[in-house]
Amino acid sequence: MRSVSDRVQALKGSPIRRLVPLAVAATKRGIHVYKLNIGQPDIPTPKSFMDGVRNADIDVLSYSPAPGIQGTIDALIGFYADMGVTLTGDQLRVTIGGSEAFAFALQTTCNPGDEVLIPEPFYPNYKGHAIMNGITVVPITTKIENGFHLPPIGEIEGLITPRTRAILFSTPANPSGVGYTREELKGIADLAIKHDLWVISDEPYRELMYEGHATSILEFPELDGRAILVDSISKRMSACGARIGCIVCKNPDLMAAIDKLTQIRLSAPTFSQLGLIAFLSSPNYKDDIAEMRRKFHSRRDTLYDALQEIPGAVCRQPEGAFYIFVKFPQIDDSEEFVKFMLNDFSVDGETVMVAPGAGFYATEGKGHDEVRIAYVLEEPKLIRAVEILKAGIEAYVEQRQRVAATAG
Amino acid sequence: MRSVSDRVQALKGSPIRRLVPLAVAATKRGIHVYKLNIGQPDIPTPKSFMDGVRNADIDVLSYSPAPGIQGTIDALIGFYADMGVTLTGDQLRVTIGGSEAFAFALQTTCNPGDEVLIPEPFYPNYKGHAIMNGITVVPITTKIENGFHLPPIGEIEGLITPRTRAILFSTPANPSGVGYTREELKGIADLAIKHDLWVISDEPYRELMYEGHATSILEFPELDGRAILVDSISKRMSACGARIGCIVCKNPDLMAAIDKLTQIRLSAPTFSQLGLIAFLSSPNYKDDIAEMRRKFHSRRDTLYDALQEIPGAVCRQPEGAFYIFVKFPQIDDSEEFVKFMLNDFSVDGETVMVAPGAGFYATEGKGHDEVRIAYVLEEPKLIRAVEILKAGIEAYVEQRQRVAATAG
Repeated sequence: MRSVSDRVQALKGSPIRRLVPLAVAATKRGIHVYKLNIGQPDIPTPKSFMDGVRNADIDVLSYSPAPGIQGTIDALIGFYADMGVTLTGDQLRVTIGGSEAFAFALQTTCNPGDEVLIPEPFYPNYKGHAIMNGITVVPITTKIENGFHLPPIGEIEGLITPRTRAILFSTPANPSGVGYTREELKGIADLAIKHDLWVISDEPYRELMYEGHATSILEFPELDGRAILVDSISKRMSACGARIGCIVCKNPDLMAAIDKLTQIRLSAPTFSQLGLIAFLSSPNYKDDIAEMRRKFHSRRDTLYDALQEIPGAVCRQPEGAFYIFVKFPQIDDSEEFVKFMLNDFSVDGETVMVAPGAGFYATEGKGHDEVRIAYVLEEPKLIRAVEILKAGIEAYVEQRQRVAATAG
Repeated sequence: MRSVSDRVQALKGSPIRRLVPLAVAATKRGIHVYKLNIGQPDIPTPKSFMDGVRNADIDVLSYSPAPGIQGTIDALIGFYADMGVTLTGDQLRVTIGGSEAFAFALQTTCNPGDEVLIPEPFYPNYKGHAIMNGITVVPITTKIENGFHLPPIGEIEGLITPRTRAILFSTPANPSGVGYTREELKGIADLAIKHDLWVISDEPYRELMYEGHATSILEFPELDGRAILVDSISKRMSACGARIGCIVCKNPDLMAAIDKLTQIRLSAPTFSQLGLIAFLSSPNYKDDIAEMRRKFHSRRDTLYDALQEIPGAVCRQPEGAFYIFVKFPQIDDSEEFVKFMLNDFSVDGETVMVAPGAGFYATEGKGHDEVRIAYVLEEPKLIRAVEILKAGIEAYVEQRQRVAATAG
C-alpha cells in the first residue's frame, strides 16, 4: 500500500474537528450542547439571496467564466464602491469562498520555502494552506492582555528575513475579535513598503465591527501594488454554504497570475453567484447587513458582560467579528477542559462546547489556558452557556485537584 | 511592486483561452462561430437536478460538512453500486468539481519533486495542477495512428524512476476519446503493483463510452490500496457549473489525508449537492444518462464520417467522451490555423473554432498538426462545421503557399 505525501502528513487535523465526535456522543446521551465552537452564524440567509438561487433561469448549467460571472464581478465592484473603494473589472476575481481566495494569495505571492508573517492567534487553516504550499508561517505573537493588538512595529520588523514575502492577517480577526486601527495598519503598510513585502488582508468580518471604523487594506493607496484583499460573503450575508468569496488587488501582474489559477479550477459555483447578484441588487441589502451587525453587537456586549462573572477570566472587549478569546488561568489544557465539558459534565442536561485556544497559535505551548467563544447563538442562550461554563470550570478544577491529591 | 511567485509564472495560460478574444471579435463582426473548442455540452441539465436546487428548503445556508453532505455521499455510493462497485461511506468524499478531486489526488500522493506518468495528449489542467504542486509530468506519448491507445507496457516501465509516485490518466479520455481496454488497464495495474505506484484514474466521461465496456479503475480489487478515482458529475449530467465531483479510494490512509484537505477548504457548494441528490433519487436518472449517451454516440458517428471527407485528415474512431483528435498533415501550426479561421476566414458569414493540439502535449513540438474537436453541438451543425473546416484548411494552405511564394 503506497504511502501518502509528507506534506499532507504534516497537516494537523483541526482540534475542533477532533472534538466533534464527543459532541455527537453527548447529544446521543440526551445532553443539549450549546455550540459556541465554530463560526457558523445562526441568522437566516437573506431572502433576496435565496430567491436569486430559486429563480435561476438555467437551461444548461454550463461552466461559468473562470474569473466569475460578469454580473457577480459588477455587483461586487458596486459593493466596494458603496464602501468608498473604486475598482476596475480586472482588479477583482470571484473565488470559491474566502478559502480559495486565501490559497490563491499564498500561491501567487510565495514560493515553497518562503516565509509569511502572521499575528497569532490566527485562523488555523492559514497554517494548513501554508503547509500544503511549502510556506513557513512566522508568528507575530500578540497578547490577550493587550486585546490582541499588534506589538510595536520594531518587534515585527525583527522577524523579517530574506525569505519573508508577505504579512498576512485578518481584521476584524478570527479568532481574537481584534480590529486593527488605521494607525496599526499604517505601520504595517510602511513596513511592507520598506521591506518590499506583500500585504494580505482577510476581511470577511469587515461589516461586523462594533468599535470605530473597520479599516480595509484597500484604503491605503500607497499599497496599490502590494495589497491583496481576501474576502468572503459567508459571514456578512450568513451564506457560509454558498462558497463565494473574492480576491482584490490593484497589481496587474498578480491579477494575471490569479487568472491562471482560476482557469485550472474552471469556475466558481453558479447558483451562489446568482444569489449574490440578487442580494446585492436588492434595495435593502445594506439594511440586512446592518441588522446582522446590530445583532452581533448586542450579543458581544451580553457575552462580554456575562464572562466578567467567571472568576479569573481574562479578556478584552473585542472590536469586531463574532468571537471572544478568553484566558482561564485555572485551566492548563483547554482541550482537556473541552473534553471534560462534553464527556463528564452537564447542568440540568446541558453543556457547552468552545474551541481550545492552542490550535490558533503557531508557537508551541501557547493558548493552552485560552478558549475561543463564538457568539453565534441568541443572547439568552449565551447567558445560559456562560453560567454552565462557569460551573464547568469549577467542577473541572475540583476534579483536577482531587486527581492530584489521589496521585499525591 | 512585489513580483509574483516563480511557480505561478511557470503556469502557461491555456491556448484555448488565448483564442477566446478572437472568437469574441469575430462574433462582433457578425460572424457566427461554431464553438467546438471546449467540453461544454449543449444538452439541458436534467429537470430533477434543477428542481432539487429550486426546492431547497434552507433557512441558514450554513457550511455543509467538509466530506460532503451525508445525503450526497449516500446517493453517490448508490450510483457506484448501480455500476457494480461496492463502497463504504469513508471511501468517498465530495469535491468541488473533478478539478478539486484531481488536485487532492496529486497533493496526497506526491511531494514536490516527485514525478507522475501521464499518457499524452492529456487535459492541460493536469499540468497546471502539477506545476502548482511542484510535481513533474513525465509524458507517455501515444499516437493518433494507434487511436491513442497505450504503448507496450515495457515502454511505460522505462519511464519509471525512483521519483515516480503515480500513473495518471483519464478514460475515456479528454482530449483523445480513447477508452482503455480492460487489458490495457490490467497492464497498468500490474506495473503499479510491481513498482509500488499510485494509480489515478479520471473518469468523468465513463458513461459516455460507445464501443465496448467503460472499464473503471475501481474494477481491479488488486488495486484497492493504490487506486484513486477522480470523478465529476459535470459531463454525464450536463452540470459543469455545479462544481461537484468526488474522490474515491479504498486506502484509509489516503482518505484520512483527503479529509484533512477538505477541512482546510471547509465545504463543497450546498445547492449543487441538493441538485445531485434529487437527480440520483429520481426514478429515471439512468434514462437521462442513457439518452445523453445516445445523443453523443450518434454525433460521434456523424462527425467521424464527415471528417473522412477532408483530404489527408488522420483520425481513428474514438471509443468515448465527446472529443475527436484529428491530424491535418498540411497544417504545421494549428494555433495559427485556428487564428486564421477566426480572424480571416468565413463561409457565408460562418466559421469554426477548434482547440489547437499542442496544448495537450507535454513533449515540445508535438501536436502542432493536430486539433481537438468537441462534438458539443447538434448533428446538422457538426456537418456544417466540418464543411467550413474543410474549406478553411484549403484556404489556409493556399494562403501559406502564397506567402511562401512571395517571400521566395
